[in-house]
Amino acid sequence: MSSPAASAPVHNHLSPLLTDLYQLTMLHGYWRNGMHAQTAVFDVYYRRNPYEGGYGVWAGLEPMLEYVLGLHFDEGALRYLAGLDLFETAFLDALRGWRFTGRIESFPEGSVVFPHEPLLTVTAPLWEAQLIETALLNTLNFQTLIATKAARCVSVMDGGTLVEFGTRRAQGPDGALGAARAAFIGGAAATSNVLAGQLYGLPVVGTHAHAWVESFPDELTAFRAYADLHPDSTTLLLDTVSTLESGLPNAITVARELRARGHELRAVRLDSGDLAYLSRRVRAALDAAGFPEVKVMASNDLSENVIQSVIREGGRLDIYAVGTQLVTGGGPGGGALGGVYKLAELGGQPRLKLTGDPSKTSLPGAKRVWRGTGTDGEQAGQYGWDVIGLAGDPAAPRAGQRVSDPANPLKSSRLPANLDWHDPRTVFVEGGERVTPPSTLPQVQARARTELRRLPEGTLRLLNPHTYRVSLTAPLQASRDALIAALQGQDVPAPTPGPDGTPGT
Amino acid sequence: MSSPAASAPVHNHLSPLLTDLYQLTMLHGYWRNGMHAQTAVFDVYYRRNPYEGGYGVWAGLEPMLEYVLGLHFDEGALRYLAGLDLFETAFLDALRGWRFTGRIESFPEGSVVFPHEPLLTVTAPLWEAQLIETALLNTLNFQTLIATKAARCVSVMDGGTLVEFGTRRAQGPDGALGAARAAFIGGAAATSNVLAGQLYGLPVVGTHAHAWVESFPDELTAFRAYADLHPDSTTLLLDTVSTLESGLPNAITVARELRARGHELRAVRLDSGDLAYLSRRVRAALDAAGFPEVKVMASNDLSENVIQSVIREGGRLDIYAVGTQLVTGGGPGGGALGGVYKLAELGGQPRLKLTGDPSKTSLPGAKRVWRGTGTDGEQAGQYGWDVIGLAGDPAAPRAGQRVSDPANPLKSSRLPANLDWHDPRTVFVEGGERVTPPSTLPQVQARARTELRRLPEGTLRLLNPHTYRVSLTAPLQASRDALIAALQGQDVPAPTPGPDGTPGT
Repeated sequence: MSSPAASAPVHNHLSPLLTDLYQLTMLHGYWRNGMHAQTAVFDVYYRRNPYEGGYGVWAGLEPMLEYVLGLHFDEGALRYLAGLDLFETAFLDALRGWRFTGRIESFPEGSVVFPHEPLLTVTAPLWEAQLIETALLNTLNFQTLIATKAARCVSVMDGGTLVEFGTRRAQGPDGALGAARAAFIGGAAATSNVLAGQLYGLPVVGTHAHAWVESFPDELTAFRAYADLHPDSTTLLLDTVSTLESGLPNAITVARELRARGHELRAVRLDSGDLAYLSRRVRAALDAAGFPEVKVMASNDLSENVIQSVIREGGRLDIYAVGTQLVTGGGPGGGALGGVYKLAELGGQPRLKLTGDPSKTSLPGAKRVWRGTGTDGEQAGQYGWDVIGLAGDPAAPRAGQRVSDPANPLKSSRLPANLDWHDPRTVFVEGGERVTPPSTLPQVQARARTELRRLPEGTLRLLNPHTYRVSLTAPLQASRDALIAALQGQDVPAPTPGPDGTPGT
Repeated sequence: MSSPAASAPVHNHLSPLLTDLYQLTMLHGYWRNGMHAQTAVFDVYYRRNPYEGGYGVWAGLEPMLEYVLGLHFDEGALRYLAGLDLFETAFLDALRGWRFTGRIESFPEGSVVFPHEPLLTVTAPLWEAQLIETALLNTLNFQTLIATKAARCVSVMDGGTLVEFGTRRAQGPDGALGAARAAFIGGAAATSNVLAGQLYGLPVVGTHAHAWVESFPDELTAFRAYADLHPDSTTLLLDTVSTLESGLPNAITVARELRARGHELRAVRLDSGDLAYLSRRVRAALDAAGFPEVKVMASNDLSENVIQSVIREGGRLDIYAVGTQLVTGGGPGGGALGGVYKLAELGGQPRLKLTGDPSKTSLPGAKRVWRGTGTDGEQAGQYGWDVIGLAGDPAAPRAGQRVSDPANPLKSSRLPANLDWHDPRTVFVEGGERVTPPSTLPQVQARARTELRRLPEGTLRLLNPHTYRVSLTAPLQASRDALIAALQGQDVPAPTPGPDGTPGT
C-alpha cells in the first residue's frame, strides 16, 4: 500500500489508471513480446437484454469517446505505476507515447440494440485497444442500463411525463450524473440534479421537501411561502401531514390565492400511500375546484411496473418522478448490464474465446451488422431482423438466405422478403480522430424516440416480450465452426513430470 | 435548456450544484423568509438493513465530510443558477457567503449500524443543513450499501480472501471508485481498479484476460509469457480453451518451469463452470503435482450466496474475486440503501414528518444513541441493545427500564441487566471545523472487522438473521406521541370558496 489515505480531493476520471491492473500488466507483456503494435479488433456486445426485456437503448458513447480520445499517461500516473514495482522502466517510458490512434465504429447513441450484436468495434494497435476496455465497458454498460430503464418507464406512461429524481440513492456522484444523462436519452424530460443541468444542459425541475413544511408553523403557511417564491411554477407536496385531509385542501386554497393574483399553481405531488386511489381523489377535487390544468405528480418508489399498475387501476397522474429504480437500473435482470469486450481478430487472424458454455463462445473475426426494415404493409418502416456477417462480405442479406442463431448454432432460419437492409453503425473515430461529430442530447433523445417506435409489436412489452431476431450469416457461422474445431483439436502437451515424478493431473 | 452539450470534460464533484434543485429553491425561500439562520437538526437513518440482512456497515463518512467542508459557490455555479431565472440576485449574492459552519456527529466509519438509529446528525443553520442533504445521502447510502455487501461476502468465506474486480460493471467511474473504497472497509483485501489504488492507497491486484491467451499461438506459450513478466506473482486464467483439459495441465507445466528457475506460481483463476467441482479437481491436481501453495481463485458472477453454496458443496477456493454483485450491491434488498435525512428540530422545537405510514413517521427532537455491550458470560464484549434517547436526557439506560420499538409504538420491552452502555457516536465537525481527525482506511477496515465480531450470534446470517434490538426511551416516545397528537389535532382551514362557489374538496 503505497500511500494510504482515507479519501482523495479530486477524482481524475480522465486518468489512464481508471482501469483494471491486468490491462496494464498485459500491456507490459504485449510490449515486451513485441506484440503491442499488432492490429486488434475488439467487439462490445451483451448476451441478455436488461430487465428481461426485448431491447436495449444504446447510451454512453459520447462520454466514452471523450475519455478514450483524451487519454494519456501523465507523470503522476507513471510515478504511481513505478511505485508498484511491477513494471520495467523502459515500458513506463514507452507509455509516455501512448495515444489512441485507432478506429471506433458503433451504433449511434439512442439506437435500439439487441443481444449478441457487435454494438461497438474498436480496431487499433493491441495495446491501445486493450487498455481502454475497463473504462469503456464501465460507461457503456451503465448508461445503456439506465437509458433502457427510462425507455421502459416511458413506454407504459400513456403520454405522461418522466422526470429523474434519484441523486440521493444513486451509486456515487457519477452514478447520479451519468444516470441523469442516460435517463434523458431514454425519454426523461428533466432531472432534479442541478449539476447534471449545468454539465449536460438538461432541464432541471424540483418541488419542495417535507422539511419545508415542517419548518413553518403550519402547512398552509408553508405552501403560501413556497408559492410566493415561484408563483408560476409551484409544485406542492401534499403528504407531510395528511394528503387528503390537509395537503389537498391547503393546496386548493393556495391555488385560489395564486389565481386571484393572476398566477396558476403548476402541480401537486403525492409521495406516499395508494397512488391509484389518491391520484383519482386529488384529480377529482382539483377539477371540481376549477383547476383541471394543475398537474398531479407522484414520487413514491416508482418503477415501470408500479407505473403500469397505477395506470391500469385508473390512476390519474401526469408526471412520474422516478428515483432509485431509474438511477440504479433496479429490478429483475437489472442492477448491471453484462456487456463484454472480446477480441475478435489479431494481426488479421480471427480469434475466439471458447470456454465450456456454448452461449458464451465469442464471434470471431471483424464483423458488420445489417438491419432489415419492413417495406410493405403493417411492417413498413418497422425493424424486422438484424444479421451479423463478416466485415469482408459485401453482399447484403437477401430473402431466402439461410442464417443461424448466435446462441444456438443448431437453430437456423431463412430470411423473409420485404426487408430493406442497411448498416446501422457509424464510424465515429478513424486514425484516432473524430470523423463524425457528436449529436446533442436532445438529438439523441429524439433518435431513441424514433427508434423505439420502429420496434415490432410486443418488443416493448415489460414482461415476456417478443424476441427480436438477430442471426449470423453462413460464412460467419462457418468461420466460427472452423475455429472451434481447430481449438478443440489443439494438442495440450502433458505437463513436464515433476522432479519427484508426480504426474501432471 | 441553457447550453445543450453531449457531455462535459470534467465532473466537478465538489460543486454545490451536486444537489436537487428543490434544495436551492428551498434555500431561497428560507432566506427570503428570514429563516435560513435558524438552527436545524437533521438526522440520517435508514428503515431496513440492506440485503434483508441483520446489520449495516457504516461507510462514506470521510468523502462526505470532505465535500461538505470544501463546499462553496464559485462564480460558474452562480452564473448557471442566475441563468435558470428562478432566483433573485440578492439571494445569489448571499450564496457567495455560504459555508458550512455547523456540527456533524456520526458513527465512525466501519461501525455496525441498525435501522431507525440516527447514524449521523447535522446541527447547523437551516440553509447549511438543507443544501448538503442530497450529496450527503448519495455518498453515505452508496458506500454503506457496498461496505455491507463486502462484509456479507467475507462472513461466509471461511478464511478466504475477498478481492474487488467490478469496475467494468459499476455504475459509472465513481460507482467503481467509491465501491473499491467501501469494499475495502467491509473486508476486501484489494481491488483491481488502479485509480482506486492511486487515490485511496488500496492494494491493487490482477490476473490476465482471455484476450491474453488468444493473442498468442497457443495457451502454453501465453502462460509462459505471462509468467516471465512477474515470475513471483503470476495468476493464470484457466478457462480460455478448457479448464481441466487445457488450462490446468498448462498451468502445472508453467508452475514447474517457474520452480526450476527459483520462482513459484502464485495462483490460478477459474472463470466459468461449476466452481465447487472444478475447484476440487484443480486443488487435487495442484496438490498431487507438488503445488499445495498455489492458490485457487474464482471470478464468475460471485455473490455471498454463491460463495456460501460453493463452500457448502466442498469447493476449495482461496481467493474470491467478486465483481458486479459487490460494486453494485446487487441481490434482494440491494441495489440502493434507502437512507433518509429528516428534520428533527428547528429553532429548538422538535419537528415531525407524519404521513400515512406509521413506520415512516420520523423521530422528533435532538437525540443521542446508547449502545449496550454485554459484561458477563457468553455475551461479554458483545453488543446487545441500542437505545435512542433525547439529547438532553443525560441518564444512561438501566436494567429494567421500559423502552419501545421505533416502528411499532405498541411494542415495549424492559432492558436486561449486564449491559455496559456507551455513546457509539463521535463529533467529527464543530463550528465548521474538523475536531476528530480522519482514520486511515486500514484503520477503518480493522474497526469494521472488530465491530462485526461483536455482533450477537445469528446477526451475520445471510437469510433470516437475528434482529438486533433498537429501542426508544420513554421520554423520546412521549415527545413523539405529543407531537403526533398536536399535528393531528391541527385545524385545516376549509379552502376559500372559488369565485363561482365551487367547494374545496
